[in-house]
Amino acid sequence: MEAPDEAEGAAGPSGRRAGLRHRHPIAEMLDLPFLPFCAFLGGLGFVCVAFVSAWCQHWRGGFALDGSAKMFNWHPVLMVTGMVVLYGAAALVYRLPPTWRGPKLPWKVLHGALALAAFILAVLGLVAVFRFHNDHGTPNMYSLHSWVGLATVLLFSCQWVAGFSAFLLPWAPAWLRALYKPVHVFFGSTILMLSVASCVSGINEKLFFSLKNGTMEYKLLPAEAVFANTLGLLILLFGVLVLGALARPSWKRPDADSPDSRQPLLTAER
Amino acid sequence: MEAPDEAEGAAGPSGRRAGLRHRHPIAEMLDLPFLPFCAFLGGLGFVCVAFVSAWCQHWRGGFALDGSAKMFNWHPVLMVTGMVVLYGAAALVYRLPPTWRGPKLPWKVLHGALALAAFILAVLGLVAVFRFHNDHGTPNMYSLHSWVGLATVLLFSCQWVAGFSAFLLPWAPAWLRALYKPVHVFFGSTILMLSVASCVSGINEKLFFSLKNGTMEYKLLPAEAVFANTLGLLILLFGVLVLGALARPSWKRPDADSPDSRQPLLTAER
Repeated sequence: MEAPDEAEGAAGPSGRRAGLRHRHPIAEMLDLPFLPFCAFLGGLGFVCVAFVSAWCQHWRGGFALDGSAKMFNWHPVLMVTGMVVLYGAAALVYRLPPTWRGPKLPWKVLHGALALAAFILAVLGLVAVFRFHNDHGTPNMYSLHSWVGLATVLLFSCQWVAGFSAFLLPWAPAWLRALYKPVHVFFGSTILMLSVASCVSGINEKLFFSLKNGTMEYKLLPAEAVFANTLGLLILLFGVLVLGALARPSWKRPDADSPDSRQPLLTAER
Repeated sequence: MEAPDEAEGAAGPSGRRAGLRHRHPIAEMLDLPFLPFCAFLGGLGFVCVAFVSAWCQHWRGGFALDGSAKMFNWHPVLMVTGMVVLYGAAALVYRLPPTWRGPKLPWKVLHGALALAAFILAVLGLVAVFRFHNDHGTPNMYSLHSWVGLATVLLFSCQWVAGFSAFLLPWAPAWLRALYKPVHVFFGSTILMLSVASCVSGINEKLFFSLKNGTMEYKLLPAEAVFANTLGLLILLFGVLVLGALARPSWKRPDADSPDSRQPLLTAER
């Protein structure tokens, strides 16, 4: 019934996505280009890292590697930098229009390398908090924050190994890659969501720990609380924008909706 | 280039989605039907409500309307029931295959009514915590949990009013509906994500408040902590499954990828 439109859309001037066809002029006008959005997101990610670093430096005593509270301070900084900002950057690699043409391998390597960097920072972030707990005789892994956080990092490790094995090692058959790809994409968004939930609960928890029994109680909303709460909102905004960008049809690779097995079967290049 | 496949897919036996064409037999075999998944999700939602109610009844002293801690207990129960379970049900209405045929109006009314019920429970949940704070001289709105939670409910109220005005009232022009629809869909998922982050941080916070300075400290992981942490993980699982179901191409309305303005322009029924 709509076949002529389908064909027209597939070869239309926008040349990108069926979803862009027949759009209202106002919709076209409001259509946001990816690169400026990406620059804004990069700025927002930088602000998140700057905020979490400033919080730990200015209000929590700075950084050290001695098992003290200053060692703990690496935990929020490494987690926000790794599991939110670098992870978000890795997730968005395939939304860059240059990745849609030419050989895929360099972009796959970039995606995997950014994800690996994010994972390494997350592991170092875990080392920081475990070392702090152990040096203070505090049990590990009791709070919901720690359960969700560790589950997120474990899921991420599985995701990275499975992604590397399926998409970067040469011996996975095309049908297996095609089968696994939507699973990888789904868990990609899920892990970011879990990271953001972990950050929000972790900031909340840290403020209750740090701001108590003094004149600067959390409930009196001192400057530190406003600052760290704002950091939580910025992290949420970053996560939501990355997930929105990933879901936006017009920013996906033109072949992203085609059967996953088609391209490898036709071109034997994945 | 792929036009024959497009046409074949559009009229193919599966008759639903371009994404289902040319799939590997194993992919077809693993393709999950929506209704059993939906039944599982309903069961999981019920378990979430049962868990949060059991937590408040068994460990936190039960329920009352007197401004005491028993009044506070309505807060988690109403929030989980409203902002997670009922909200999830409302979000998934258009994934039910019967909604794909026939007049849309009854399904729109169901979607809006479920969302309204969720919103009313959320407002009552806010009343419970504000009343508890006010009766105990505790400031409101200082924790990150409260900031994220209130932002979520406020966003939800905007979403409901805008959705009602655009899709249920008769005077919104088709182009405006088409323009607003992807925004509504995006914020639909975003609000659920924020709800889940609010729940995780709220459960974490409540456990730190309740389990302290006694023999049953949170960090010693008493039965209550294991139970409530498990509740947090179940809520996360519920949220992730709803968001996954919303994103799954083969469960979307067959016209969901077509230009949003096409159906209303053709049928004048939205």
